[in-house]
Amino acid sequence: MKQFLSINDVPDVSELVHQALTVKRNPDAWKELGLYKTLGMIFMNPSLRTRLSTQKAGNSLGMNVMVMNVAQDGWNLETGDGVVMDGDAQEHIREAARVISQYCDIIALRSFARLKNQEEDRSEAFLTRFVDEATVPVINMESATGHPLQALADLMTIEEHRSTTAPRVVLTWAPHPRALPQAVPNSFAQWVGKSDAELIITHPEGYTLDPEFTAGAAFEPDQNRALEGADFVYAKNWSSTTPYGEVLSRDRDWMITEEKMSLTNQGKFMHCLPVRRNVIVTDEVLDSPTSIVIEQAANREFATQAVLKRVLEWIG
Amino acid sequence: MKQFLSINDVPDVSELVHQALTVKRNPDAWKELGLYKTLGMIFMNPSLRTRLSTQKAGNSLGMNVMVMNVAQDGWNLETGDGVVMDGDAQEHIREAARVISQYCDIIALRSFARLKNQEEDRSEAFLTRFVDEATVPVINMESATGHPLQALADLMTIEEHRSTTAPRVVLTWAPHPRALPQAVPNSFAQWVGKSDAELIITHPEGYTLDPEFTAGAAFEPDQNRALEGADFVYAKNWSSTTPYGEVLSRDRDWMITEEKMSLTNQGKFMHCLPVRRNVIVTDEVLDSPTSIVIEQAANREFATQAVLKRVLEWIG
Amino acid sequence: MKQFLSINDVPDVSELVHQALTVKRNPDAWKELGLYKTLGMIFMNPSLRTRLSTQKAGNSLGMNVMVMNVAQDGWNLETGDGVVMDGDAQEHIREAARVISQYCDIIALRSFARLKNQEEDRSEAFLTRFVDEATVPVINMESATGHPLQALADLMTIEEHRSTTAPRVVLTWAPHPRALPQAVPNSFAQWVGKSDAELIITHPEGYTLDPEFTAGAAFEPDQNRALEGADFVYAKNWSSTTPYGEVLSRDRDWMITEEKMSLTNQGKFMHCLPVRRNVIVTDEVLDSPTSIVIEQAANREFATQAVLKRVLEWIG
Repeated sequence: MKQFLSINDVPDVSELVHQALTVKRNPDAWKELGLYKTLGMIFMNPSLRTRLSTQKAGNSLGMNVMVMNVAQDGWNLETGDGVVMDGDAQEHIREAARVISQYCDIIALRSFARLKNQEEDRSEAFLTRFVDEATVPVINMESATGHPLQALADLMTIEEHRSTTAPRVVLTWAPHPRALPQAVPNSFAQWVGKSDAELIITHPEGYTLDPEFTAGAAFEPDQNRALEGADFVYAKNWSSTTPYGEVLSRDRDWMITEEKMSLTNQGKFMHCLPVRRNVIVTDEVLDSPTSIVIEQAANREFATQAVLKRVLEWIG
Repeated sequence: MKQFLSINDVPDVSELVHQALTVKRNPDAWKELGLYKTLGMIFMNPSLRTRLSTQKAGNSLGMNVMVMNVAQDGWNLETGDGVVMDGDAQEHIREAARVISQYCDIIALRSFARLKNQEEDRSEAFLTRFVDEATVPVINMESATGHPLQALADLMTIEEHRSTTAPRVVLTWAPHPRALPQAVPNSFAQWVGKSDAELIITHPEGYTLDPEFTAGAAFEPDQNRALEGADFVYAKNWSSTTPYGEVLSRDRDWMITEEKMSLTNQGKFMHCLPVRRNVIVTDEVLDSPTSIVIEQAANREFATQAVLKRVLEWIG
Repeated sequence: MKQFLSINDVPDVSELVHQALTVKRNPDAWKELGLYKTLGMIFMNPSLRTRLSTQKAGNSLGMNVMVMNVAQDGWNLETGDGVVMDGDAQEHIREAARVISQYCDIIALRSFARLKNQEEDRSEAFLTRFVDEATVPVINMESATGHPLQALADLMTIEEHRSTTAPRVVLTWAPHPRALPQAVPNSFAQWVGKSDAELIITHPEGYTLDPEFTAGAAFEPDQNRALEGADFVYAKNWSSTTPYGEVLSRDRDWMITEEKMSLTNQGKFMHCLPVRRNVIVTDEVLDSPTSIVIEQAANREFATQAVLKRVLEWIG
């Protein structure tokens, strides 16, 4: 695998899910594969789980890991072409990406959607430009429109818990006080769409996800109806898409409760974390055995390790 | 040792002190004990010495070390139960502790007293909750009421410098412009209380330490009288306890000077650092051979290495 | 090499340049030299390239590397003697340097010029005091007046690209919106002065560099005339020296353009990065094959690795 920006870099999703589960069973089996290789983790935005799981994954493969919180250092990168750089930005992404490439064998990059301009975010301007300039493989640790490492961990978790060939998976919007990116639901929908599962998406008006990511999914505006017979309930907030990047609804009726879970087929509750308790989901659901959110988070490590392993094998 | 939260996790204080001194004599002797194991250092508050000494101790045992400055990333953790999380806190400590446990074999945690509510601090609400939720051993890098790694390093230093079986040790309050936690004096009093030393505590009115930590110690309100014949003088500021968490006194008469040291039995000067010169103690004392503060700081590394070694042995 | 603070620690500049080029050809050849040794990187000011290249260099020699962003943690160090420390500074540099020395085999330190007081900066008060107090070798990752690791990388790059024994090297001031330190041009002038190259410096009035660093260089006030026949053009902004530390000129006529490069002898364009495009230099120049700025940045890693190697050999 020469890079991991999105599902488009994955020739066979099911095979990668099974590889990641193999890595999970024996994470120490490739502990010298990355010896004397360097993973540079570049964060334009803060991170807890992605940071720790990726660093752990790199270490488990024997890699040296360097972590750089660019935003904390007040390092603003210019992405425009032809700009006279006499403002806040100290460096152009062109130099930054090429220089970081000099010191790393693989670069993992996080750069969130800015939620200001839909076209800018849709174009993945930052990630794309960084990758174009970089001279080593890049791994996406969440970009403007996608979070494929999360989606891979999610599919692993579904694979571990499903009891039928084609489980019914519901992706439901849930309320949140702030405007959040669509990266997680986008990637989840896209990756589930490549699996045997049936995907139903439910959300209030104005929250329709970009159809680029939801091909094959059914839409059901009534959350309760969507939940009927669900094997997995994936709750997540995202900001509105029409208009773009706003909090149109704070409707607590969309919060996942035990009553709602009772509509499902003994469905498992999923969330990428961090989760706001009693806003996205009640304590009762999150603290019940139906919640598999901690396993999802644990699988982040092995998903990333499997991806790094593939990229290291490609580097040779 | 299955965890290291306080002296209560130490069956034999004297034996641990001697183990730590053994580690100091040969720090490379266990350099493969922690191979392929991960130490996660989580800082809710900033740190210099604890950060570097703990990272070094982990490295010396062959561990991979991941450092996370949670507060710098603006990651606020909710600790209350049943809270509707629609405010600043993005994540509940319940998820955070369980998730970090997935990526680490040992977690070292720093979370200071908030000095707002005495009962909240006394209950060690944050540390206790984190430990309850964590699924791997936790090491206390300073909590609301204690700093046991510091106290272990302090006892090592006393052991190295004492000339009598039962040295006279004086813990004296000293002035400081800010309101500081009681963690260091609490643990120092508690650990010295388990040694052969005689402990005398002196401080202005309103600064009486929680008796839970000072059992067996004598109190002497007159600093000069307390210092008479002292073999070791441990100076430290802490905020008031009645009322709680305030700066009641800035009295410079409590500063440790050469004149005051002359009252002692050629006593050694100790402080956990960082120390404010000419506020806590004069330059003359700190720069004289009676000061052993740098050795105390150096012993932090070996104290932590000894503790990590014991926890690694428990993990097996 | 017992330390690396400036060119004064380098007995033979040309030999060190060639050693660094040797390291570049085979960076893995000393991968066990620093095993079980610790490099502590202490940043009083933020860094991207220096941070990553130094961490990488340490890792390539097998060292454990600890990174501390002191300023981000709000850790203010007092440097004055006899000061009553009841203000912002929590710790004196005397304790900080001695304590960090306990945990590290080599300390790499960055501390910029403050540009407030010329004498304070000229005296290298912070670096000198830190080194005086430290008990292990110190490496300068940019101090008030010098950036020798950058200069070493620059000489490596010139060595790789020169076609004559004594290339004509032009150091030219270029505009920038902020007041920047003189450390990079100082060290560049000083190091080139020890090579076979001919050095010409050009800048507007008020920007004369400290003659301590520019011995042997010619000064040419007319930038175009200076550029005539140049083999290498090193552009860099620095703040004024008379008066000290100000932005006296923002004159865009000093920006390096294709037209100006056409005056040279097919000269190569150099800059230490980060560079402000279309302020210091036009896109056309920076994106042309005459620009060797990325190679300069790449050489930072090997320059630092060569220096660390020498210091490790000295430690034994």
